[in-house]
Amino acid sequence: MAKDHIPYKIYLEENEMPKTWYNVRADMKNKPAPLLNPGTLKPMTAAELSGVFCDELVKQELDDVTPYIEIPEEIREFYNMYRPSPLVRAYCLEKKLGTPAKIYYKFEGNNTSGSHKLNSAIAQAYYAKKQGLKGVTTETGAGQWGTALSMACAYFGLDCKVYMVKVSYEQKPFRREVMRTYGASVTPSPSTETAVGRKILAEHPGTTGSLGCAISEAVEAATTREGYRYVLGSVLNQVLLHQSIIGLETKAAMDKYGIKPDVIIGCAGGGSNLGGLIAPFMGEKLRGEADYEFIAVEPASCPSFTRGTFAYDFCDTGKVCPLAKMYTLGCGFIPAANHAGGLRYHGMSSVLSQLYADGLMRAISVKQTEVFKAAEYFARVEGILPAPESSHAIKAAIDEAVKCRETGEEKTILFGLTGTGYFDMTAYEQYNDGKMTDYVPTDEEIKASVSCLPKV
Amino acid sequence: MAKDHIPYKIYLEENEMPKTWYNVRADMKNKPAPLLNPGTLKPMTAAELSGVFCDELVKQELDDVTPYIEIPEEIREFYNMYRPSPLVRAYCLEKKLGTPAKIYYKFEGNNTSGSHKLNSAIAQAYYAKKQGLKGVTTETGAGQWGTALSMACAYFGLDCKVYMVKVSYEQKPFRREVMRTYGASVTPSPSTETAVGRKILAEHPGTTGSLGCAISEAVEAATTREGYRYVLGSVLNQVLLHQSIIGLETKAAMDKYGIKPDVIIGCAGGGSNLGGLIAPFMGEKLRGEADYEFIAVEPASCPSFTRGTFAYDFCDTGKVCPLAKMYTLGCGFIPAANHAGGLRYHGMSSVLSQLYADGLMRAISVKQTEVFKAAEYFARVEGILPAPESSHAIKAAIDEAVKCRETGEEKTILFGLTGTGYFDMTAYEQYNDGKMTDYVPTDEEIKASVSCLPKV
Repeated sequence: MAKDHIPYKIYLEENEMPKTWYNVRADMKNKPAPLLNPGTLKPMTAAELSGVFCDELVKQELDDVTPYIEIPEEIREFYNMYRPSPLVRAYCLEKKLGTPAKIYYKFEGNNTSGSHKLNSAIAQAYYAKKQGLKGVTTETGAGQWGTALSMACAYFGLDCKVYMVKVSYEQKPFRREVMRTYGASVTPSPSTETAVGRKILAEHPGTTGSLGCAISEAVEAATTREGYRYVLGSVLNQVLLHQSIIGLETKAAMDKYGIKPDVIIGCAGGGSNLGGLIAPFMGEKLRGEADYEFIAVEPASCPSFTRGTFAYDFCDTGKVCPLAKMYTLGCGFIPAANHAGGLRYHGMSSVLSQLYADGLMRAISVKQTEVFKAAEYFARVEGILPAPESSHAIKAAIDEAVKCRETGEEKTILFGLTGTGYFDMTAYEQYNDGKMTDYVPTDEEIKASVSCLPKV
Repeated sequence: MAKDHIPYKIYLEENEMPKTWYNVRADMKNKPAPLLNPGTLKPMTAAELSGVFCDELVKQELDDVTPYIEIPEEIREFYNMYRPSPLVRAYCLEKKLGTPAKIYYKFEGNNTSGSHKLNSAIAQAYYAKKQGLKGVTTETGAGQWGTALSMACAYFGLDCKVYMVKVSYEQKPFRREVMRTYGASVTPSPSTETAVGRKILAEHPGTTGSLGCAISEAVEAATTREGYRYVLGSVLNQVLLHQSIIGLETKAAMDKYGIKPDVIIGCAGGGSNLGGLIAPFMGEKLRGEADYEFIAVEPASCPSFTRGTFAYDFCDTGKVCPLAKMYTLGCGFIPAANHAGGLRYHGMSSVLSQLYADGLMRAISVKQTEVFKAAEYFARVEGILPAPESSHAIKAAIDEAVKCRETGEEKTILFGLTGTGYFDMTAYEQYNDGKMTDYVPTDEEIKASVSCLPKV
């Protein structure tokens, strides 16, 4: 039963917090396709994966039958420090828009990493620690993931080695310093520390790096070093599993107040936030217990769902990682330099790709100037300065609420507010100065990029 | 009665939120001395003050008899967007320190302004709007207050004009952009927009500005413009009144769980946070209902309580503002350039100064390298990257907890965590690079500075 007054913010009590993650794959009739070994093109075995990932994470990566997986107590203790995140009723936004719609957002930005990334970082660090490892390596672009992982490693006393895309390392010194404050070593990539880094530097002297190159360096650093593993902040099944905490908390909070969302909206880059937010709701839909409309929102400059191809592709530009079946723009696709709004990954989580292919959710793309317009509007009305990534979902939610104003429908809209924009002020400055432009790849560009997909 | 399990974070329900502010002056036997007119040296009248401040705020500034003042509904609605702030039980810190002490902190950093300043900004903007004004002016140094005021003005549709110390304007472009995103106009000070700015520029070409100069420009801009008033983020009685929301929420949360703090610790610059946090507890002490130990923590580089003089002084370097009786280092005192830790104000709230003079609280000073060491320690253990200002309180709280470890005392320690350090990464970088140094003014420097106090 819906209660009379819904508070501005719903916080779960500690004893109401989820004790398990939810693995949506268990309820999928069509399972996501397995990762393939880039050499043999055969499904990656646990043994092969365990050279790169911790054993427990390999298990989670491959498990598509167990619906609920216990969250270890140590991780729940860490969650207790910054979770539950608030489920916010956007009363001020509703009033300003004059909409009959009820708008809710799950705000994941209230922690020092500034985003939901911490939910998986702490899990991955925990399993590395439990396995007796010395440390982990990873790459970071803008720095959200690297920051989250640094915090998690500091908590468990693990060494943390971050390869940061060189241009970000130089242009985002503050993110770098947050990571260093948490004791991580941060190396601008490409570096001379790895064979692949030296090769790239020799071939492209003066390059400012790319995420693909940083991934290759981080993987090499993990696999050539005793006691290290590589960790990744999105795309993987294990990451979506950990991020299900977002959706589970949201659902528990809504159930407590008798609220049922009609539309659930999330921004989509690699899929970690969207996959986590929708997980338990999608579970109900898959089991035929309830119906929801799911909307993935991606940037028009990197439109993997809306304009990509559903096929096997490399997860990294360097082509050293396994292949995943996903909606992809081709692993060589890089959004134009004027794209400041995050969500730059060429592909999309295999789980979400399968759900999308099966018609269980829809996707739209939005241009970055309209995303920043929505971000500014939201900031002034709701008091939170959103991350550019999150603002894709804001834009879509506002559009839905405006539609309700026109039709008179009293829809309940839920969206994921994944993080804050405190480290994205250079992009906001561009917008404030009226210098932000849009980029939409041409059909020819996308065709050329996907023509390089591996033949599987 | 103390409950069995205290959660990691205590959030009040909406119906438990304070509906009034608490005015500690009402319970003080020795009232804080009145502001004096800098021309006549007579107490400022309401009529004189109303040229500078809104009428309702003048009333609050002068009222030292009414204990509880209603928080208008519109302000409570805004508070609902980001309050209650969590009262956190620092379980992880306690465990790491191995202390029998119980540590709590009230965390005010979970809003886009990044600090407690928003609590008073929204009140001041509300009264300005209610009076039908067009806008407000203010100064900002590091930018916390300017950001808070920009957010508040955006909410009420008020014009907001911020004079930002030129060196900060140039070195902290991100803070500036947050303010611009909220629609504020930000002018580097000194500017050619005001007579006082032009005078200073003529006398000191190439100056990078100071807070005192920015105050003078903001006051001139407010008093020479139709429909504008000046607002200030600390020191004033009205600001401490609004900030009492911090202490009232804290007390309500503690009472709910049967917790009574033994020691209450806050950082002290102008006194807005400390005054707000301790208000209801100090009220009980003043009325003889309970006893608490209060500790103000200030930087060794700007030690107004511990090494200043209790006397009438100007509130600004430009000597255009009223005089206040306070602990002061002299209005010309400026901490050395290597001081990165905030809390740079030469004086201290008249309310707190009187309480300190009456022996109702004590004060200590700490050096900035040890403050940043405590900040880093705290960040790694509790997951929150604190503002340098807040870290003064962290340092003192850790020291108290370590003392308890040595004596075996199970004290309950409460401190105010006023904000986050996301916009202070330049200072953290200095610390990370081992380049941070300490500054402690010599007795001669302080003697010279206070020798310029006005003769009242």
